[in-house]
Amino acid sequence: MGDSRPIGVFDSGIGGLTVVKALRDLLPNEKIFYLGDTARVPYGGKSANTVERYSLEMTNMLVDEDVKAIVIACNSASAVALPKLEKTLSVPVIGVIKPGAQAAISATRNRHIGVIGTRATIKSGAYEKALREFDPKISISARACPLLVPFIEEGWLEDKLTDQIIARYLEPLMRDGVDTLVLGCTHYPLLVRVISRFVGAKVELVDSAKNCAIAVQQLLDRQLLRATTENSGSLEVALTDAPDNFLRVARDALQLEIGEVQLREVIHGAGNVA
Amino acid sequence: MGDSRPIGVFDSGIGGLTVVKALRDLLPNEKIFYLGDTARVPYGGKSANTVERYSLEMTNMLVDEDVKAIVIACNSASAVALPKLEKTLSVPVIGVIKPGAQAAISATRNRHIGVIGTRATIKSGAYEKALREFDPKISISARACPLLVPFIEEGWLEDKLTDQIIARYLEPLMRDGVDTLVLGCTHYPLLVRVISRFVGAKVELVDSAKNCAIAVQQLLDRQLLRATTENSGSLEVALTDAPDNFLRVARDALQLEIGEVQLREVIHGAGNVA
Repeated sequence: MGDSRPIGVFDSGIGGLTVVKALRDLLPNEKIFYLGDTARVPYGGKSANTVERYSLEMTNMLVDEDVKAIVIACNSASAVALPKLEKTLSVPVIGVIKPGAQAAISATRNRHIGVIGTRATIKSGAYEKALREFDPKISISARACPLLVPFIEEGWLEDKLTDQIIARYLEPLMRDGVDTLVLGCTHYPLLVRVISRFVGAKVELVDSAKNCAIAVQQLLDRQLLRATTENSGSLEVALTDAPDNFLRVARDALQLEIGEVQLREVIHGAGNVA
Repeated sequence: MGDSRPIGVFDSGIGGLTVVKALRDLLPNEKIFYLGDTARVPYGGKSANTVERYSLEMTNMLVDEDVKAIVIACNSASAVALPKLEKTLSVPVIGVIKPGAQAAISATRNRHIGVIGTRATIKSGAYEKALREFDPKISISARACPLLVPFIEEGWLEDKLTDQIIARYLEPLMRDGVDTLVLGCTHYPLLVRVISRFVGAKVELVDSAKNCAIAVQQLLDRQLLRATTENSGSLEVALTDAPDNFLRVARDALQLEIGEVQLREVIHGAGNVA
């Protein structure tokens, strides 16, 4: 029969479209409803309490769209709010951290993994926790890279300044000897070429977008929630503030077809009620 | 007699503390109540509608603190929301743009002024408008510099990467031949040394913080709102989200004494009611 309801995807802004791209490629028959909280973006520098409250408000808005599952396509929100969301929401929820951690564990040979992300993500220790659940003895070097998202949103995806900022942030991790690097922010896949150039072919990059899409596929299969192959997939994008220049940057970089963007007002207090 | 009520200062985040510093220096007998909307920072990339709504909510919260005047220590909010705030609020309101424009007009000799700021500020054209009200024939070169605030918040106030980013943003304005540069964002005074180094001594920097403080002094004098010299001035800081690393950066750079930071919940809808 198949379940033709949409998959709800939530991010603090536009960066989660990298997850949408991976979902569209892997699950072309699925409808996707994307909700980006651009009125309050970014989450990465905000406190855990605030990120949790915002995440509850946003995911409750997705539940109102009759989604069959929710993807937290934002590392900061996944890091901080996932346990609460799993307890509260009436549909299955999947984040980006566990799939990324699992992929990193499979990839590493020297058992030393690097993690980069926003301040909120790194401060939460969520990747360390997830990695150690798979392997308690793994070595981890983690670093917050708060300037990467602004560089990406400026559209400087190929720029000598971007190369320098990457070198500045990643040099200590390379010195530590990591052989695997988790791109722990959904914006970062847009920098994959610059990052590869710096770390070289011997370091495996783990892209949370792609691994999250695989985990979504497994979840839908397990819970018999897949749309049938007759279904034509689609993408609806809603934002809490009018889109700026970065939507163009992301659309072009990802080659995603995005129709008219809807504007949604934040429904406040959903987080408190839950 | 004197009016001992506090001056309310509002900013999207922490950057407005540069204005507080200028106010404390110029008006040491005044109490200051500072409100930073760190739960939704930054405003600079958001739409005019959203910035106006947030600004109304925040300034209404300041009115509830019984302030005698409100300073919009945020260029993005001043650029977009000031006309509405002036119409709506029951206390006098002053922004950073007109004082900055006036100072730039006094400073320029070749009548060619540069303006840098966030995307929202530059897109609004507010500086152009204010400058042309003083001198309709002035030449203006304006540029959005969205990466400067993230660099400042990272604490990289003296760094070779910051020098390079400044050069990248300011080179076109120097080529245009500006002799005066308006720092159209309350964060930017923290970069004044790097900027001076790049533009050289022949370009006058106009710091919106200092000029705004002078305008506040004039407003208080005009409306007989000054506290007496017996009053001991003070500073209270309230934020809508728990402070992060940048509060330390700003406090150290500005040598501001900040006591315990209060947390305030955003009162939603104030903007709609007004």
